[in-house]
Amino acid sequence: MSVTRRNFITRVAQAGGYGAAFSTMQALGLLAEPAERSLGNLPRDLGKGKTVVILGAGIAGMVAAYELRKAGFQCTLLEARERPGGRNWTIRKGSAIEFTDGSVQHCDWKEGLYMNAGPARIPSIHRTILGYCEELGIPLEVEINSSRSALMQSDDLNGGRPVEQRQVIYDTRGHLAELFSKAIHQGRLDEMLTKEDGERLLAFLRTYGDLKNDLAYAGTERSGYAVARGSGIDPPQLKKPLGLHDLLLANFVKGEFYEDRLDWQATMFQPVGGMDRIAYRFAEKLGNVVHFRCAVKEIRRTETGARVVYSSADGTMNRIDADFCICTLPVAILRDIPNDFSNATRQAIQGWSMVTQYKIGWQSPRFWEREYNIYGGISFLNQAVDLVWYPSDRLFSSYGVLIAGFNVEMDEAGKPTDFGRLGSIAAKLAASRASVEKLHPGHGKELTKPIYVSWPSIPYSLGSFANTHLESAQPAYNQMHRPEGNIFFAGDYLSQIVGWQEGAALSAHRVVAEIADRV
Amino acid sequence: MSVTRRNFITRVAQAGGYGAAFSTMQALGLLAEPAERSLGNLPRDLGKGKTVVILGAGIAGMVAAYELRKAGFQCTLLEARERPGGRNWTIRKGSAIEFTDGSVQHCDWKEGLYMNAGPARIPSIHRTILGYCEELGIPLEVEINSSRSALMQSDDLNGGRPVEQRQVIYDTRGHLAELFSKAIHQGRLDEMLTKEDGERLLAFLRTYGDLKNDLAYAGTERSGYAVARGSGIDPPQLKKPLGLHDLLLANFVKGEFYEDRLDWQATMFQPVGGMDRIAYRFAEKLGNVVHFRCAVKEIRRTETGARVVYSSADGTMNRIDADFCICTLPVAILRDIPNDFSNATRQAIQGWSMVTQYKIGWQSPRFWEREYNIYGGISFLNQAVDLVWYPSDRLFSSYGVLIAGFNVEMDEAGKPTDFGRLGSIAAKLAASRASVEKLHPGHGKELTKPIYVSWPSIPYSLGSFANTHLESAQPAYNQMHRPEGNIFFAGDYLSQIVGWQEGAALSAHRVVAEIADRV
Repeated sequence: MSVTRRNFITRVAQAGGYGAAFSTMQALGLLAEPAERSLGNLPRDLGKGKTVVILGAGIAGMVAAYELRKAGFQCTLLEARERPGGRNWTIRKGSAIEFTDGSVQHCDWKEGLYMNAGPARIPSIHRTILGYCEELGIPLEVEINSSRSALMQSDDLNGGRPVEQRQVIYDTRGHLAELFSKAIHQGRLDEMLTKEDGERLLAFLRTYGDLKNDLAYAGTERSGYAVARGSGIDPPQLKKPLGLHDLLLANFVKGEFYEDRLDWQATMFQPVGGMDRIAYRFAEKLGNVVHFRCAVKEIRRTETGARVVYSSADGTMNRIDADFCICTLPVAILRDIPNDFSNATRQAIQGWSMVTQYKIGWQSPRFWEREYNIYGGISFLNQAVDLVWYPSDRLFSSYGVLIAGFNVEMDEAGKPTDFGRLGSIAAKLAASRASVEKLHPGHGKELTKPIYVSWPSIPYSLGSFANTHLESAQPAYNQMHRPEGNIFFAGDYLSQIVGWQEGAALSAHRVVAEIADRV
Repeated sequence: MSVTRRNFITRVAQAGGYGAAFSTMQALGLLAEPAERSLGNLPRDLGKGKTVVILGAGIAGMVAAYELRKAGFQCTLLEARERPGGRNWTIRKGSAIEFTDGSVQHCDWKEGLYMNAGPARIPSIHRTILGYCEELGIPLEVEINSSRSALMQSDDLNGGRPVEQRQVIYDTRGHLAELFSKAIHQGRLDEMLTKEDGERLLAFLRTYGDLKNDLAYAGTERSGYAVARGSGIDPPQLKKPLGLHDLLLANFVKGEFYEDRLDWQATMFQPVGGMDRIAYRFAEKLGNVVHFRCAVKEIRRTETGARVVYSSADGTMNRIDADFCICTLPVAILRDIPNDFSNATRQAIQGWSMVTQYKIGWQSPRFWEREYNIYGGISFLNQAVDLVWYPSDRLFSSYGVLIAGFNVEMDEAGKPTDFGRLGSIAAKLAASRASVEKLHPGHGKELTKPIYVSWPSIPYSLGSFANTHLESAQPAYNQMHRPEGNIFFAGDYLSQIVGWQEGAALSAHRVVAEIADRV
């Protein structure tokens, strides 16, 4: 950040407080800066003598504790699980996946294999979480979010046999370019465009679609070859283009535009070794601030701050009084914890639905690399399990974790999806294997040691994230930005980047700034 | 490869020879297989007592020598330079770049920094060269060929200020989708589409362009935010879309479709530490087969094979007789070496023009990562130096080599480009710095220690590759697939993947198969 801008922010902080400075930074998109600066350089002794109890050692809770300690606050962080991170959870050999129904899966994958059950990608625009990776010394590697060799499969296309993404993308383009350039050429769009722009658009479409001189689309090298290029004088042969009608019918909208969402655009990263590297480094830095196996039982406002009742690892009930409380518990958990919040806040918590994501991971030999040239990226198919995600870690090694299934159990209306309707875990795993088999015939049988993480069934989460995308969630979203006395709420669900660690970190920064303004 | 297919190839080899098997494998796109198989399992003693002299220790020459030795041939490889690799050349601290005019640049970059002057990327579909990386134990990492945070600049757009690629790509899409969906909606394309396909296309275009319900394009989150998302209740603000007219005028065709060429599609790789890791590992494997500083002076056919006259490192003239010769020298070099090739071959060599690529690399602090969220990828601009390529190696470190300028000195007609017309190296470096400054105002001055590699001026290359893209090159291409007696020609220029190591390796495989058929 330039000195001028930094001075500006400092002046905003002086005039309007840390909260105002935070909002200004955020609006200007300046949160690319290290947290100290984005928080307006909180003085080191700001929190001297002040206590804060933080509920939940996910990213929001740990970022808050980490920054408050820098500013001199005395922090206590209560975490119900035995590990830090919350949904930042990496499954590997030795992990136990316990569901709310008491069933447990034990992971026994080969050393080095892992699945990030929650967040698995960090886009390069998420500067806050990237800044923490740098500050905490966490090595990152490229997460490959799309590969043109990945596949798409629809029963309505190519006799149900999968095709490469490059064919879907570039053949669709070619047909569209032919159609629209001919329409322009025939004067059908004359009233919609100036003559000059029409000509420029025609030139654009020729390249866009890789059209012939007569504006026909007759295939493109972008879609790959049926007879490969090589050495020799026999010409290679382009693949026969997939038909527009069939492509439209196959309706690959999800797969085709997956990489275009802002948060899914290249370049993306992942911590080397698993996303929980971030969680564990934060926990290490926080040391004995974090108290594991401490489940919150009551949250109360007091005259001077907050009181939290919790059960300890040893089974005893305890209580803690603090000047401030930051609650990062998911609404699905919070709604069942006795509290004395206002009716407005209770209603917000009560009515807020959770997204119901799941992931299924399998240990598998990396046939997708050697036989399909697929290194990272995602294949899509129109089946109950509608995507297969290839690992970006340890490319070219022997085994990897193939994620066959990453979607929701229920739609936004609460109706089970095709996957959610499958009656048993066995049926879900069978659907997962079947999707891999559809894409990679003969290889379904190579998948072993499945792990199924269904977030609605994970204790202390009960869902993947609060559904802020629904119009109806807006009042609840606004309400929970208001503290209950000295009790503040934070988490990715109180950000506009819900479901991402970036949102959790920014929400933590916001409440830290607000607490700073009160002392 | 399945056993059935392998048996099939083996039968083809038995019936039609190794050359036939090679062609079959190639046509079937089966060269994803390790070289031994793609060459039809040449018997280990096939070449017993047979000698081969190979000219040029580039990828083609070294692959040929490596495979022929496996099959028992006695090989001698003559290389004019002091290093292996040919155009596979990595510039780093200590490298000297000598031009044909005698001028020399010495590279003094920080330890670990490098620029691949020639090939710099390996697409995942180039299975042969990837197979060698695996066989030779060369660690690879992801080469990031496109980043949506990279920039595009045109004097005709946004007042000449650069915009993010995501804005160009998704705003263009949005406008096209609006235009064409409205055209469909208004019935302008009724004669061109069935009603059902029109409706499907309309649905497709809505998602394609992220259109509003009324089919208007009013910006998209894909293009990024003017007021960033964060935590809090103030809504983020989308960027104002760039106008279609301005986008068409800016004519970003090169940048917009760069990532779509088959060989530039994700996923791509690079050897960790520099592309020459491949060259040096091959040379290491070949040991004393490779003779450096041996410049070829004459190539002659003999009764039983070939005779090559060459100058040695000690300045003496030598000659070598062998049963076979594989010549991988560039046509620009070959045309001045006395030989007794047929007139047809001489003409082919004589008339074949070379592509005139250059690259300019600078040592620089990585401002593009911290200040622009750019990690790898390429920015494009409509200037004499029309692209800036960001390093994919050692992301998040302090310094990197920024490639500002990678294009040709002359167009296909032999006319100097805007860059080629610049009269001096100083002017070229100034243009390079100016392009970085256009994209990243204030940072041009941070660039230091430029290295300018212009392939037409590099001894023993005299160009980047033979121009096989010209229609007029076709007869020469065909002619040089014919051996002159026992003298065979190989190189990327005798493949349909010209300018890539994959083409060089496949061409080497072809001549190895042809020699195998002769013994």
